[in-house]
Amino acid sequence: MTRVAIMGATGYTALETILILLRHPGAEITALTTRSEERPHVSSVHPQLAGRLDLFLENLSAQEIAQRAECVFSCLPHKASAERIPTLLAEGCKVVDLSADYRLNDPQVFEAWYGVKHPDPERLGRTPYGLPELFRERIVGADLVANPGCYPTSAIVALAPLLKKKWIRPEGIIIDSKSGASGAGKSLKPHLMYCELNEGFSAYGVGVHRHTPEIEQVLSEVAGEKVDVIFTPHLVPMERGILTTAYSIPTADFTQEQILGEMRDFYENEPFVRVVEGLPNTRDCRNSNYVSVTARVVKDRIVTISCLDNLVKGASGAAVQNFNILFEYPENTALL
Amino acid sequence: MTRVAIMGATGYTALETILILLRHPGAEITALTTRSEERPHVSSVHPQLAGRLDLFLENLSAQEIAQRAECVFSCLPHKASAERIPTLLAEGCKVVDLSADYRLNDPQVFEAWYGVKHPDPERLGRTPYGLPELFRERIVGADLVANPGCYPTSAIVALAPLLKKKWIRPEGIIIDSKSGASGAGKSLKPHLMYCELNEGFSAYGVGVHRHTPEIEQVLSEVAGEKVDVIFTPHLVPMERGILTTAYSIPTADFTQEQILGEMRDFYENEPFVRVVEGLPNTRDCRNSNYVSVTARVVKDRIVTISCLDNLVKGASGAAVQNFNILFEYPENTALL
Amino acid sequence: MTRVAIMGATGYTALETILILLRHPGAEITALTTRSEERPHVSSVHPQLAGRLDLFLENLSAQEIAQRAECVFSCLPHKASAERIPTLLAEGCKVVDLSADYRLNDPQVFEAWYGVKHPDPERLGRTPYGLPELFRERIVGADLVANPGCYPTSAIVALAPLLKKKWIRPEGIIIDSKSGASGAGKSLKPHLMYCELNEGFSAYGVGVHRHTPEIEQVLSEVAGEKVDVIFTPHLVPMERGILTTAYSIPTADFTQEQILGEMRDFYENEPFVRVVEGLPNTRDCRNSNYVSVTARVVKDRIVTISCLDNLVKGASGAAVQNFNILFEYPENTALL
Amino acid sequence: MTRVAIMGATGYTALETILILLRHPGAEITALTTRSEERPHVSSVHPQLAGRLDLFLENLSAQEIAQRAECVFSCLPHKASAERIPTLLAEGCKVVDLSADYRLNDPQVFEAWYGVKHPDPERLGRTPYGLPELFRERIVGADLVANPGCYPTSAIVALAPLLKKKWIRPEGIIIDSKSGASGAGKSLKPHLMYCELNEGFSAYGVGVHRHTPEIEQVLSEVAGEKVDVIFTPHLVPMERGILTTAYSIPTADFTQEQILGEMRDFYENEPFVRVVEGLPNTRDCRNSNYVSVTARVVKDRIVTISCLDNLVKGASGAAVQNFNILFEYPENTALL
Repeated sequence: MTRVAIMGATGYTALETILILLRHPGAEITALTTRSEERPHVSSVHPQLAGRLDLFLENLSAQEIAQRAECVFSCLPHKASAERIPTLLAEGCKVVDLSADYRLNDPQVFEAWYGVKHPDPERLGRTPYGLPELFRERIVGADLVANPGCYPTSAIVALAPLLKKKWIRPEGIIIDSKSGASGAGKSLKPHLMYCELNEGFSAYGVGVHRHTPEIEQVLSEVAGEKVDVIFTPHLVPMERGILTTAYSIPTADFTQEQILGEMRDFYENEPFVRVVEGLPNTRDCRNSNYVSVTARVVKDRIVTISCLDNLVKGASGAAVQNFNILFEYPENTALL
Repeated sequence: MTRVAIMGATGYTALETILILLRHPGAEITALTTRSEERPHVSSVHPQLAGRLDLFLENLSAQEIAQRAECVFSCLPHKASAERIPTLLAEGCKVVDLSADYRLNDPQVFEAWYGVKHPDPERLGRTPYGLPELFRERIVGADLVANPGCYPTSAIVALAPLLKKKWIRPEGIIIDSKSGASGAGKSLKPHLMYCELNEGFSAYGVGVHRHTPEIEQVLSEVAGEKVDVIFTPHLVPMERGILTTAYSIPTADFTQEQILGEMRDFYENEPFVRVVEGLPNTRDCRNSNYVSVTARVVKDRIVTISCLDNLVKGASGAAVQNFNILFEYPENTALL
Repeated sequence: MTRVAIMGATGYTALETILILLRHPGAEITALTTRSEERPHVSSVHPQLAGRLDLFLENLSAQEIAQRAECVFSCLPHKASAERIPTLLAEGCKVVDLSADYRLNDPQVFEAWYGVKHPDPERLGRTPYGLPELFRERIVGADLVANPGCYPTSAIVALAPLLKKKWIRPEGIIIDSKSGASGAGKSLKPHLMYCELNEGFSAYGVGVHRHTPEIEQVLSEVAGEKVDVIFTPHLVPMERGILTTAYSIPTADFTQEQILGEMRDFYENEPFVRVVEGLPNTRDCRNSNYVSVTARVVKDRIVTISCLDNLVKGASGAAVQNFNILFEYPENTALL
Repeated sequence: MTRVAIMGATGYTALETILILLRHPGAEITALTTRSEERPHVSSVHPQLAGRLDLFLENLSAQEIAQRAECVFSCLPHKASAERIPTLLAEGCKVVDLSADYRLNDPQVFEAWYGVKHPDPERLGRTPYGLPELFRERIVGADLVANPGCYPTSAIVALAPLLKKKWIRPEGIIIDSKSGASGAGKSLKPHLMYCELNEGFSAYGVGVHRHTPEIEQVLSEVAGEKVDVIFTPHLVPMERGILTTAYSIPTADFTQEQILGEMRDFYENEPFVRVVEGLPNTRDCRNSNYVSVTARVVKDRIVTISCLDNLVKGASGAAVQNFNILFEYPENTALL
């Protein structure tokens, strides 16, 4: 049994992580933290958990957390996460960081996109990016994992096989993504009110979304050359799910069959990636850790379409998948 | 007072046309038709109209319709529409055709995309495309208008100013569109059930949607050269609204200000096109005949974003706008 | 042409009032007010209005408003409304008050339910309740009208005919109402966030909702004896619409036909009340000023079911209906 | 390991049962049946299951099913279910019947409400009603369990403690229930289309819904006297969840605290019933096997409010709970 703590337990990714861990035969949740001074019962913050988890949210120091847990899931916002993680690691915890803090390799890129100085720059570039489908061997034995962003996972899973093979060009890639509202978190923002989002579809962060450098960094590493993307996220009037439609320029006349075949080979042994013939729907992946991906050839472009549940494979499910690797549980434990 | 008939009155575009016409001081609805043998009261088909319109849906011949109306809005499916329209015209009616039948210029292109022989090929290429923002002078005095498709209007309004000026290249244009479910009509299809669409976002018709040749034909005419697009429609779990994100390659280093300025000039006197600074939301145009459009420069691409209500400016509102032009009412009558 | 002002123009009822008035041939909107010191253009607060209304929201005194308008729609919250209305009336304006301030007759009942002292108690009991279907003759010639609450309108329209006739008993009436979220206004409350309301149906304010005394007061007046109700509102994951299911005890063995017949007689000349055979749906009344109502006899109870659009007949549509009566426009102007 | 079959595997309750069983360490799904002659892979019917379950839907006889499974979950419609179950039982299977076939005790009542002759009337009255919270001891050791209806579970859980104690009167009970659309199943019905249900709240089956006799039968048994209810179901524009607001007449002046206390005592050892202080929301129970219930005293009535997920505790979760009892797995296996 592994004792686990959730740091920053008020939000949606924390709730989802708790719900998954409640099914995990090897995990015992021993601490939930909040940065507020109140000490609410978890069921008053998340009524879903009434009768299922009897813990209070506490304002604990990193040292106090480390005394209660062998593994910490950090659901804190960026910066707040990296301010606490060094202590946790020094105290012997393993950490799965769901924030963006350890995803980028370069502290200056982090500062440019997130607008703050990185609190722990030495670990950047040395922390594995927690996408087991690409980097499993780096995660094994690590003490800290940077859990991927939701949009990046959806884009990377679709494009990595083709970039790796150099079947598509590394520039001119258009990534048009659509996400449900839970990806924006639980904060009170006018555009996230029911009466503002209902029947309201819109783009946001066009050309300036923080997941852009993350996508480019990972795809560049896979491609072995600089990859350049145009990334446009959209907000869909729904709760969960991301679908990413990406347009890339093939380097030769590949058929749809060849592309799907290559994707299938690439993900042959991956338990959570499904290369499908039909056009996937976010519902297919809802409440599960699966990604569905397909491809079409349209005129002189390859159109890839991928989807996942932003709170599961895009956040908490991937985090538990990483936890399973770190603590040597079967990788799909609690994820079926 | 102009007597008007709605042909094919059971569907969503018919209902929307009726609701708009009920506010029109110059229009009197005198006939509603159906191809079924039943003769239901309109309020049993559209409960919204109880107490507002006292007519029955009738299976009328084109001759019978022509006796009752000076203008006919055809909400029939493609082919069925063009089978009846020649008679209506011969009988002296003016017709606004909301089907796709008279939008394409070439009968062979029609047959290739719609899978049926065109019943009235002679009128193709001579029927004005009912987008007054581009072709108002052709609509004035016409007896038949081809009301544009919903996706095409959203794409054309955004791209026409830039293609006209040759500020973007005519090839490599990516049109990524997202539509609410009312665009698919009222037929009983499994994927349109509430429990299948709710929380379900998906692409469909990738590379093969029938609006593709319509978009290319109109944009080619505007550009004065062949325009080639990759068009991907998506279904959004909402009822109304289309948002189109288009990616095009500029022919020089234009700034966002230049592009928005050019759009503003292009639509300077248009009552229903709004060039906006912020990112538009389908809610902004819901239940109205307005289009909102903006542009961003992202790396080496121009990203245009446009939205409208697929049932209003994308169908019935545009139809009434065309009706107003045909019958010399102020163009915004009943559309404010 | 009547010059009108909207006081408190940032919210949903203000937007809806504006949209209706834009279609009103006799109304010219000349002022929009806000209690904030900023002076935003109306299109930045309500993007729907871009290109349709060119006004700024201004922090105007009652005197300043009175100089610009002959009629004021107050969309301010309770108390704030009654603090300004006496001055408007003294300056010669007519006022339709969409707040709850002048609905109750007794200042002590107001204070008990709203928790504040009434700023203008003398007018209570002398201000007509703006439900023309019951009190039209009081509204004609008035200078101030108390626009009804949304839940009360839905309940009163269904029960008034039966109480008037003494066909149901005045006690033991269960009113189980369900409303879309726009009824809660535009304020940032956690339970109104998309991800909290989506798929979330709940009761609220059980036994303590402020519309209870309003319903009882009006029904008691209609019945000519004290009417006592149990009122339970619920929040539905939708934007607009109220449906009220009420259970009352008949005083004799009435049939469904008798009850519907009585309702039809009662509302015979009412343009906006539809007594229907089938079970009404909130969609039937959406975006319209209509109420649909029906009744069923189930065992020893009469079940009445009524619905309306909370923002139209439940607020802004009723307000314009009252405006039409005050200024002698045809009562359905702009409401078709 | 128990081999299980799902009979009638195309619908929503079948899918939900499969998803729960995939997490059950003691259950192996060995057969999925359909009454159609096609033999589709389960992933083509339920794309969610791609990569998770590799079975085909087969048109199997009861004998064939019995050869493959020790336990059968019947998700067939009423009548079809009872036509097959006798054979399954004769072949030695245990059966959890999710249809309504074995819930009512009296074949004539069944025939009156379901409009068909019961195919297996001898078992009526002798089959345990699968609500373990009330009838666990009857389920233990049974070979057939009648899984309760979704509305009945929501109503019975709230009212049983009070009727048992005779704290409320057995007549004049108003049960006003609201359900998401998945309760209506997957069939193509116009009112279940997205564009008809979105923003559409309505009552249906007023006074004539088939769950009425089921509720009355179970509550009468609990009360030890005839219980009479007025039951009004409503359709909510959401996918999952039932909330039931019930109004009953207390037999003495009980306080809210007394009522909640009595409910807590009644369900003290029940793992899936949560008696809560606050007003429950369908979201609290979504995707879980929990029921939340509370009570308020309003004037001379007790208002109880209860909610659950219609597909889990209202169907498939309860079915697996019954399966766990039948096969002596811990009752909450796969349900956490």
